[in-house]
Amino acid sequence: MDTTTTTPNAGPPEKAVTIASIAREAGVSVATVSKVLNGKADVSPTTKAHVESIITARNYRRRAPKTNRSSLIELVFHEFDTAWSMELVAAVERRAAADNINVVISRLDTDGRPASQLIDAILERSPLGVLLVMTSVDDAQVAQFESRSIPVVAIDAFGDQPDRIPTVGSNNWSGAFAATKHLIDLGHRRIAMISGPIRYLNSRARVDGYRSALESSGIDMDRSLIRYGDFFFTGGALHARDLLTRENPPTAIFAGSDLQAIGVYRTAQELGIRIPEDLSVVGYDGVQLTEWMSPPLTTIDQSLDLMGETATEMLITMSEGGTVRVPHLDLSTELIIRGSTAPPAS
Amino acid sequence: MDTTTTTPNAGPPEKAVTIASIAREAGVSVATVSKVLNGKADVSPTTKAHVESIITARNYRRRAPKTNRSSLIELVFHEFDTAWSMELVAAVERRAAADNINVVISRLDTDGRPASQLIDAILERSPLGVLLVMTSVDDAQVAQFESRSIPVVAIDAFGDQPDRIPTVGSNNWSGAFAATKHLIDLGHRRIAMISGPIRYLNSRARVDGYRSALESSGIDMDRSLIRYGDFFFTGGALHARDLLTRENPPTAIFAGSDLQAIGVYRTAQELGIRIPEDLSVVGYDGVQLTEWMSPPLTTIDQSLDLMGETATEMLITMSEGGTVRVPHLDLSTELIIRGSTAPPAS
Repeated sequence: MDTTTTTPNAGPPEKAVTIASIAREAGVSVATVSKVLNGKADVSPTTKAHVESIITARNYRRRAPKTNRSSLIELVFHEFDTAWSMELVAAVERRAAADNINVVISRLDTDGRPASQLIDAILERSPLGVLLVMTSVDDAQVAQFESRSIPVVAIDAFGDQPDRIPTVGSNNWSGAFAATKHLIDLGHRRIAMISGPIRYLNSRARVDGYRSALESSGIDMDRSLIRYGDFFFTGGALHARDLLTRENPPTAIFAGSDLQAIGVYRTAQELGIRIPEDLSVVGYDGVQLTEWMSPPLTTIDQSLDLMGETATEMLITMSEGGTVRVPHLDLSTELIIRGSTAPPAS
Repeated sequence: MDTTTTTPNAGPPEKAVTIASIAREAGVSVATVSKVLNGKADVSPTTKAHVESIITARNYRRRAPKTNRSSLIELVFHEFDTAWSMELVAAVERRAAADNINVVISRLDTDGRPASQLIDAILERSPLGVLLVMTSVDDAQVAQFESRSIPVVAIDAFGDQPDRIPTVGSNNWSGAFAATKHLIDLGHRRIAMISGPIRYLNSRARVDGYRSALESSGIDMDRSLIRYGDFFFTGGALHARDLLTRENPPTAIFAGSDLQAIGVYRTAQELGIRIPEDLSVVGYDGVQLTEWMSPPLTTIDQSLDLMGETATEMLITMSEGGTVRVPHLDLSTELIIRGSTAPPAS
């Protein structure tokens, strides 16, 4: 990749491009260009799109303010009402507060609110930076932030972000490999996997890790044991029911998220299947409530704390004109062995 | 209570008090008073305290801006990494986003950050309003917000807020009464209660509701069945162990929070006690994950959604100069009966 584009505000703006030159080229007033840059509402959509296109084409960069550095970070979620999101919010807030920075949260998909409106609101607040969580933005949206010298970092991206946005994620393949290997080492041979939606790259990476662990142990993979569901309780509960009531059911289930694992617990209880005596279960994420499950859940800890902290630090560095040395950082995961896994009943 | 003080920005400021008159009285420049009002950092603590005392003594009220209404609500938690907080955050964000308002979150007790620094940061952002969640502020802090015409609403207050802050809570006494009555109706007579910390008024109200339900059914109360713990997993798990391993253990436990109930589940599992066959459990809060527990938890739904939504609406109304008709609103609770409660084993 082109490393010169990973630090949007490291370089000086091109000399020839000014607000005045953009206004001239667009055939509008300087005030109008300024309004567009500041996300003000009173510019017609047509004019706005026209001005944005010239800002992008001319690669205009507003100089980052040297003083009065903003004390806000925007934390943008696709959805956030899960344990997973809360732990990330807490980590980002903790790290930000240490620098006396506050965190604005929003969802990109809040009922009926167009993304452009949210982005305008962010531009108007002129934050120190934007953290995207499991949220895709397109090239034009990234260009809007870059032209205002607002750095953007993505956490656990789907993998379809513009490549120049720095990302913090976790090594999904290795995590899934370790989870599956743990079950194999316990003696399991029929291991099912309930993954997240196939459209997410992290789901795919986890399925690949699972598959490689089986292959490297010489276990023939049964394709019918791989399921794709949503990342939530229902995804786990429904697929577990299907898997556990079939002929020749699995002796272990590796779930793509801790919430899915909670769904597996429910189905097992309803079917009178004991965990871990009759069924071993491994989750993924390592949210705190996995410690509280009965039995406590064996899971892959993604280190959400460290993920939130690292992303916040990258953003602060970029906002100060610094360079992020590793623009695409995948944190390693850790297998946490608890009471939900045991050797299969013989 | 004095209803005239519940709507801080309804009345006009007293005519004689201006920034200039405060500056004169304090012996500082107009610019210094302005800095204090705007939460700027470059005023010495002594000067600041002096100016604040005159602002309060003279009952100065900055006129709320008629245009450029801020698009931020400050959501201030004492702590927020629980399922409970997340549902409240989601509800506030949803309601705020409908008016194109964003939410800044912060914790008052973030490691080593003094409350005054957070309050200064809030004053500097000049938000539409401040929502306090399970967070106490003192009279002087409230005065700081009032003098800037920033309305404040408290959610689920401990009961020790200055009375003039509007509050949204839930009827803790009724909720606890309903939970206990449900267990009595099932035939339980030895019902334990694990409450939250005794210093919180909501803990006290719940214990009183529990006691009244027993009394009104003619059941002698055994004081040793009432325990006070923290609101989290550990509080529930530890007290449950003590209760369930004593002579003459209870046949039912009413927990003061859903997280405590999760702790009770864990202890029951470890002791080989089945829910609901050997032990009935009722929680309190109604967070989503109670649906996912095995068995699903009978609980008192506080309607966190409605609580967050109502508080946000009160704040928006106040920020527009409107009056909040019911300044202390307690939402009713609902008993949700699920699989964790059954008649006692005979």
